[in-house]
Amino acid sequence: MIDYIRDGAEIYRRSFATIRAETDLSGMPPGVAQVAVRMVHACGMVDLVNDLAWSPGVVTAAREALRNGAPVLCDAMMVASGVTRRRLPADNEVLCTLGDPRVPELAERLGTTRSAAALELWRDRLDNAVVAIGNAPTALFRLLELVEEGAGRPAAVLGVPVGFIGAAESKLALAEHPSGLDHLVVHGRRGGSAMAAAAVNAIASEEE
Amino acid sequence: MIDYIRDGAEIYRRSFATIRAETDLSGMPPGVAQVAVRMVHACGMVDLVNDLAWSPGVVTAAREALRNGAPVLCDAMMVASGVTRRRLPADNEVLCTLGDPRVPELAERLGTTRSAAALELWRDRLDNAVVAIGNAPTALFRLLELVEEGAGRPAAVLGVPVGFIGAAESKLALAEHPSGLDHLVVHGRRGGSAMAAAAVNAIASEEE
Repeated sequence: MIDYIRDGAEIYRRSFATIRAETDLSGMPPGVAQVAVRMVHACGMVDLVNDLAWSPGVVTAAREALRNGAPVLCDAMMVASGVTRRRLPADNEVLCTLGDPRVPELAERLGTTRSAAALELWRDRLDNAVVAIGNAPTALFRLLELVEEGAGRPAAVLGVPVGFIGAAESKLALAEHPSGLDHLVVHGRRGGSAMAAAAVNAIASEEE
Repeated sequence: MIDYIRDGAEIYRRSFATIRAETDLSGMPPGVAQVAVRMVHACGMVDLVNDLAWSPGVVTAAREALRNGAPVLCDAMMVASGVTRRRLPADNEVLCTLGDPRVPELAERLGTTRSAAALELWRDRLDNAVVAIGNAPTALFRLLELVEEGAGRPAAVLGVPVGFIGAAESKLALAEHPSGLDHLVVHGRRGGSAMAAAAVNAIASEEE
């Protein structure tokens, strides 16, 4: 038998204690700090907090929307899959439209990626939703276009697409968007579905 | 309309070109280099390659197993969700037992995490399977115990659990395990379901 800690609650406790010891969360509002801890936990990197940026009201706005039954709109199945359903306060719907059979044709017609085209199917859900983008920069760009077109205004946007082409730019576009959307981003190339899901999970419930 | 690249194929091409320009893959066998590129793509960090370690035969062994119909055993739903089914060469089963209703009781009885207990339900599938651990260090430790108990010998283990408690140790235990299992790991705290799924996807098909 190998010697390792088998107690899940103890692993969580020690993980969060390590993160709090190694990060400087003092400049963050308490709600954002709680989200930051879970995001660091999801990626194993304490220096993630250096790239984190947020609008002051983002956690409050997202929490209130979830309590009021808002759906969580995700750009990737992995994000949806990472949301812990029992943490959601109102049995909220967690929606990813990327696998919808209409998406490939929409992408062709709109001349864009399937990740961006999938947002066409969010139009009647977008207003006051919590949006979690953990994969595709094009989805985040498209979201901003939908907001500009007046398709709806999400309560909060958790924008952490990952990668080398467009990721940093899309997050900058969100953070500086004239609409003033409530948002949380990880600037630069880092991001991903685990971080996006961790942010949703932290917002959904204050329980560690 | 915001100005960004909308052509998915072009985004992939530029992403992989950026990764190849910014990483030194010269010390890697070609198969491992291909896996490394996809893993870097999944996390946005070119320095990931510095923490990558592997047994020489891991990609060949995993590819052959998949071609022969081996299942992909995943420790987390997010890993399973990230595996692109159309890349798999033999319509392989992608299995995650974490949500099985027997798991909470198994965890209680065995005095371990649910992630580790879920591996009890792998016993009749373990031999010659491709294992992808992208979340829980305890699952990777438990896997090594199962191998030691003679429960089966996976064809390859993609071991990239993430986090602060046990992650680095579990990956070291895999890399140095006396069984000499074919393996690929990211040493240290970094890892995650996206990296694990990316490794499976790279191994499943040589198509970029």
